[in-house]
Amino acid sequence: MSVILNKGQLSEVLPLLERVVPSRSANPLYTHLGLSLSPKGLVLFGSNGEVDLEVRLEAEVQDEGRFLVPAQPFFQLVRSLPGEVVELSLGRELELASGAFRTRLALAPEEGYPELLFPEPGSPSEAYPLLAPLGAEDLLKAFTHVRYAASNEEYRAIFRGVQLEFSEARLRAVASDGYRLALYDLERPQPFAKKAVVPARSVDEIVRVLKGLDPGDVELALGPATLGLVVPFAGGVLRMAVKLMEGEFPDYERVIPKEFPLRATLEVEPFREALKRVSVLADRQNHRVDLLFQEGKVLLSAEGDYGKGQEELPVALEGSPLAVAYNARYLLEALSPLSGQAVLYLSGAASPSLVRPLEGEGYQAVVVPLRV
Amino acid sequence: MSVILNKGQLSEVLPLLERVVPSRSANPLYTHLGLSLSPKGLVLFGSNGEVDLEVRLEAEVQDEGRFLVPAQPFFQLVRSLPGEVVELSLGRELELASGAFRTRLALAPEEGYPELLFPEPGSPSEAYPLLAPLGAEDLLKAFTHVRYAASNEEYRAIFRGVQLEFSEARLRAVASDGYRLALYDLERPQPFAKKAVVPARSVDEIVRVLKGLDPGDVELALGPATLGLVVPFAGGVLRMAVKLMEGEFPDYERVIPKEFPLRATLEVEPFREALKRVSVLADRQNHRVDLLFQEGKVLLSAEGDYGKGQEELPVALEGSPLAVAYNARYLLEALSPLSGQAVLYLSGAASPSLVRPLEGEGYQAVVVPLRV
Repeated sequence: MSVILNKGQLSEVLPLLERVVPSRSANPLYTHLGLSLSPKGLVLFGSNGEVDLEVRLEAEVQDEGRFLVPAQPFFQLVRSLPGEVVELSLGRELELASGAFRTRLALAPEEGYPELLFPEPGSPSEAYPLLAPLGAEDLLKAFTHVRYAASNEEYRAIFRGVQLEFSEARLRAVASDGYRLALYDLERPQPFAKKAVVPARSVDEIVRVLKGLDPGDVELALGPATLGLVVPFAGGVLRMAVKLMEGEFPDYERVIPKEFPLRATLEVEPFREALKRVSVLADRQNHRVDLLFQEGKVLLSAEGDYGKGQEELPVALEGSPLAVAYNARYLLEALSPLSGQAVLYLSGAASPSLVRPLEGEGYQAVVVPLRV
Repeated sequence: MSVILNKGQLSEVLPLLERVVPSRSANPLYTHLGLSLSPKGLVLFGSNGEVDLEVRLEAEVQDEGRFLVPAQPFFQLVRSLPGEVVELSLGRELELASGAFRTRLALAPEEGYPELLFPEPGSPSEAYPLLAPLGAEDLLKAFTHVRYAASNEEYRAIFRGVQLEFSEARLRAVASDGYRLALYDLERPQPFAKKAVVPARSVDEIVRVLKGLDPGDVELALGPATLGLVVPFAGGVLRMAVKLMEGEFPDYERVIPKEFPLRATLEVEPFREALKRVSVLADRQNHRVDLLFQEGKVLLSAEGDYGKGQEELPVALEGSPLAVAYNARYLLEALSPLSGQAVLYLSGAASPSLVRPLEGEGYQAVVVPLRV
């Protein structure tokens, strides 16, 4: 049986599969790309055991069949094919023809390849009883605003994920490493109440898929231990299934201060640049930068082995003058999703500060000052 | 004493110094950047023990003095300064001011920093008795055409360098790893006859300097164990000194065949692309691709664990049909400096082949076929 495809169709989605399918694995079947042909079209699928991904492409196919091809040469070849059209013929081998180029790739037997379970768009299933439709742009924002705050440490493994909180009032994404915290609220009522922690690396794959395909609306699907995602795009439908982490975040709301003796409104870009410059002089361990807020200005200063540096910037202050010190990296990361104007809410030199955009709610970052 | 500079002046040359000055070194003085002030201008200098580099910038300076500043923070700071103008004040510390930013960097004592010896433009010296003026573009071409063929292996260390051969007839650059060879002849009479082997990594630094500054004419200077280079550019003069390797290449001329039963003229770009595609299927160890030349065509084919692939391309043939096999990587690298049309000179299935551009002499690459 055979299928004819435009190279463009394949090259849009193969990079997404290439990121998931491992080039080496304890189970060599995982290093294969699945091709499933049916009158409905061509389905490409792959998995690394954590993230499953499949893409259905529209194509004219006569027969039905399921095949596993060695993924690495397939990806490499399709990237560099001479013709605009690719013909795939599947039987005992995969024959791939394009322009003057012909190849035959050995197929792997299907036995032992895990069953991949994806959500059905619009219909709850046993594997995915809960469905939540969502704008792709919204989901992307929620993930990219908080991703940086997830932990890289083995210690307290739950913090290596991003927690999604579905509730009647909203969808919230939150990440923390125990020292700082970022959350993004999407003020849209959700059809169910549930918390689910997605491993940060799987969040990265979801972000890449959403950026790579530029879809309109997507569907999140929640199963007992799996987050599913349906992503329609111009040339077909992509579906993902990612393993969830066990457990949930400890109660973090209580560390977010509610009262702030000082509020500083600042331009993000020049503040970020000044912070970067001054932090070059900071000690290598704490990256400590001191901030002195008074009289419509903030004086940033740092001192380390190389010497000292300082810079002054105008800020709009409401409240009493304050001296406070931060790990410059944490403060820079808290500002990283922002542009335009931001507000720094200071609750004191020894208690958490809050970073928010001046306009547009949704994002909040908690940064704990360094002890002075 | 102080000097005022445009940020642009510094940012053009600092990346070149940044590549040379190490961020860590057994001798911590090497992690410093030298600043030398005199009425003639500002000189910045640095070294990693293999490559010495200095840049003289035009600037108004009153006093004289020589200072060592910690290089890493200096590079980082200058990259991100807020103002267009930088003021450097040197005394017991370096004070750097730009816009609202101020910093003081600790200086290192000068004792123990090695003396850097550079050639004087136009005048031979004890350290550099031999001078050869040259177009920067020519030197760049000579180095970049052959650099890929230098060895990365410890074995036969001399092949980890590029040999420059100055002679009455020409300047030649040649590199080899014992299995293949690349040479580039610059047909310009040289003022002396001498061979010098430049470490490949120092060649890379010279190439970066020439590409980074886009100068017109340069001067090569040869000392007993050092290659010097003077590079005038719009904002000043850059000088380099690189340690030469001891010894010279064994006689390689005798491995270059003189007679060829087959000559194949081909379009480099499509041939290279086909070679890359077909080599995806090649065995991982030898990267073997078979080439069958006959009847105005070449059939490329490869076979390995994944399967087999083949592609046919038109070529203009002069001579008798031939089957020959290469390590695809070696053949691709031999073609890498070329575009347009190239000629493959074949001396047989078991003896070296030659790659040359169809037009414009200068470049020759020797590739030894794989045993069939």
